[in-house]
Amino acid sequence: MTMKETIDQALSKNSKTPVPARLGIIGGGQLAKMTALAARELGCDVVIFERNPSTPAAPLANDTWVGDWDDASLLLKWAAQADVVTLENEFLNVEALAAIERAGHVLHPGTSTLAQVQDKLIQKETLARAGLALPRFAGVDQVSKMESLGQDWGWPLVLKTRRNGYDGKGNFTLHGPQDIETGWAVLRGDRQALYVEAFCDFARELAVMVTRGRDGALAVYPVVETVQKDHVCHVVRAPANIPPDVASQASRVACRAIETIGGVGSFGVEMFLTKTGEVLVNELAPRVHNSGHYTIEACECSQFENHVRAVLGWPLGSTAMVAPAAVMINLLGAGGGSGQPHGLEKALAVAGAHVHIYGKTTSGSGRKMGHVTALGQTLAAAESKALEAATSLQFGKKP
Amino acid sequence: MTMKETIDQALSKNSKTPVPARLGIIGGGQLAKMTALAARELGCDVVIFERNPSTPAAPLANDTWVGDWDDASLLLKWAAQADVVTLENEFLNVEALAAIERAGHVLHPGTSTLAQVQDKLIQKETLARAGLALPRFAGVDQVSKMESLGQDWGWPLVLKTRRNGYDGKGNFTLHGPQDIETGWAVLRGDRQALYVEAFCDFARELAVMVTRGRDGALAVYPVVETVQKDHVCHVVRAPANIPPDVASQASRVACRAIETIGGVGSFGVEMFLTKTGEVLVNELAPRVHNSGHYTIEACECSQFENHVRAVLGWPLGSTAMVAPAAVMINLLGAGGGSGQPHGLEKALAVAGAHVHIYGKTTSGSGRKMGHVTALGQTLAAAESKALEAATSLQFGKKP
Repeated sequence: MTMKETIDQALSKNSKTPVPARLGIIGGGQLAKMTALAARELGCDVVIFERNPSTPAAPLANDTWVGDWDDASLLLKWAAQADVVTLENEFLNVEALAAIERAGHVLHPGTSTLAQVQDKLIQKETLARAGLALPRFAGVDQVSKMESLGQDWGWPLVLKTRRNGYDGKGNFTLHGPQDIETGWAVLRGDRQALYVEAFCDFARELAVMVTRGRDGALAVYPVVETVQKDHVCHVVRAPANIPPDVASQASRVACRAIETIGGVGSFGVEMFLTKTGEVLVNELAPRVHNSGHYTIEACECSQFENHVRAVLGWPLGSTAMVAPAAVMINLLGAGGGSGQPHGLEKALAVAGAHVHIYGKTTSGSGRKMGHVTALGQTLAAAESKALEAATSLQFGKKP
Repeated sequence: MTMKETIDQALSKNSKTPVPARLGIIGGGQLAKMTALAARELGCDVVIFERNPSTPAAPLANDTWVGDWDDASLLLKWAAQADVVTLENEFLNVEALAAIERAGHVLHPGTSTLAQVQDKLIQKETLARAGLALPRFAGVDQVSKMESLGQDWGWPLVLKTRRNGYDGKGNFTLHGPQDIETGWAVLRGDRQALYVEAFCDFARELAVMVTRGRDGALAVYPVVETVQKDHVCHVVRAPANIPPDVASQASRVACRAIETIGGVGSFGVEMFLTKTGEVLVNELAPRVHNSGHYTIEACECSQFENHVRAVLGWPLGSTAMVAPAAVMINLLGAGGGSGQPHGLEKALAVAGAHVHIYGKTTSGSGRKMGHVTALGQTLAAAESKALEAATSLQFGKKP
């Protein structure tokens, strides 16, 4: 327990005047927005720190500071007004964040968790040491190593950046030795650290959201199936249509992964289900995650509300689904243009479809602009509703 | 169709760049807050006009103007930035609102609706003319009339102010002729218009939320039972445990009432179910209503989202419940103090209880500070969860 936590606890015991909890969020995108909406329902205040003044979350905040995430001194001043600081993306400077912790402020997830996740090679080494199964991986610091790994493991290999990769950015598939030089050049292997993974010829991709409280309590959401399109999460089906023993295994793996990194808050655990029925960890997101957006309507307590509860040290809510099935579909920009969609009225006419428009200023090709969730008695029924609404909506023009 | 609507429609047909819909809300309390939360999910912008700068809704708005609701010229300037103006309370100056409409701005509900609702005597006359059953009522402009009405209808009578009454404020029960002078003096009958109603010895109080679109489409929520405590809505049970034919009758009455006043938006219709099985209209609220807060978690589309859809001219959402039963319990201030509760962690530990804290600056005795909703397989199961969470929470100190 930090000094600030000890003082807070002592004060709260004697306090005669409850005050609003004040949540600080670094980042102001759609994840911060949905977290802020949940925090507001619970009566919390919200302060945002962002590089960009016009973000989806800014209009929901009591105050937004605009500045560089790497500016430790500004970040520190901003953090002083929050009871707890959290984040919506993992690509932050751990040194700057460590300054917040050293000053006695509460940061969740903390830098010790982030240090185990940010660098994907360290993340994989950490999970492997904890006994979790993963696709084979290895750091590569020279071109020659890839050729021998390909010979040992078989092609293809996936070459990846150790840091700052997401939604397929920072990945290059090596189908054989002839691709090595191109991959190395494209990912700038001479300038940044890379690693390779054995290509996983999976049967399905699965994901589990896990919220872990400050006291170590776990709230585990249903295992979902995620369908990627062009490396971006496109459809989420909850619960995944998999045998119960596979679901139990995936839940256990997800919990073990988050306990291993000592995470506090909501975390996304992405997994592969191989054709031989193995569950392998793909990667962790130390934050609320796209594969958990369905929980807003489909679960008693959403990933966002549970994240707020967890980081503030409050009891976690129930992850039970309120319907037998739910399907979420992402709304991606078709090209540049307005952040508001064409076709909204048509989408809203689909009974039972929940339309979320993030309110970004501009669209961009492949950019996440919103999502649609529908509940149903079956996955097929939910997916048909969600799809009908989602296909009505278009952001930006195809270039 | 107003000139502005015609222009908007023409523009939207040709528009190549969708822009965020901008909802103006007069008032910034908890109803405005929950409306704003729903509007934000749909990607709308929100602007607030309020007398008080520190309100629950203000932190959710792009902009809040502080001023007097009766100041037509300020209201008009503010309204110019909104696509549609709506309101969270019915105690506004219709003259000031009419100025907004005359200037070509869209106001929903409009002044023609408000003029039929604000004055309770006119409201009752309007509903009676439309063939709806109500407890007997009559305007009273002199003390002597009450004595003869009491003799005709039987005691008790309820003496009420024609305007600005809510939550039992502006009501006085006359148990017999001996109470007339006191009632007249307490409600200042020499200064404001009063009316009397026959006391309704009801079996239950019922309520129905109805959303009506600009095109006249109706979205009707389940019939609920409301339990008042000290004239304030305390518990809402959805759906009401009543025979199906009574529920159908109540739904029909509610729809007819809102069609009669030409309402656009979400409306609360409060009714009495008499001991002989009659459904009588008690009163209308031309706005989202406390008896519909359960719809946030319990219905596919909440009263707040449907209000936003209706006033913006968008298709209405499904009012289907996502669980067999839901119970909402209001959290009222026990006395003065902080707007934040004691006991939050205890309440959050109740699985399946949805805690809403409005974020008011201060508590007050009987003031609405938040609410709790729980879903369940039965009303009893839902109520037990909601009650456990609600009784854990306390706002302010008993004086």
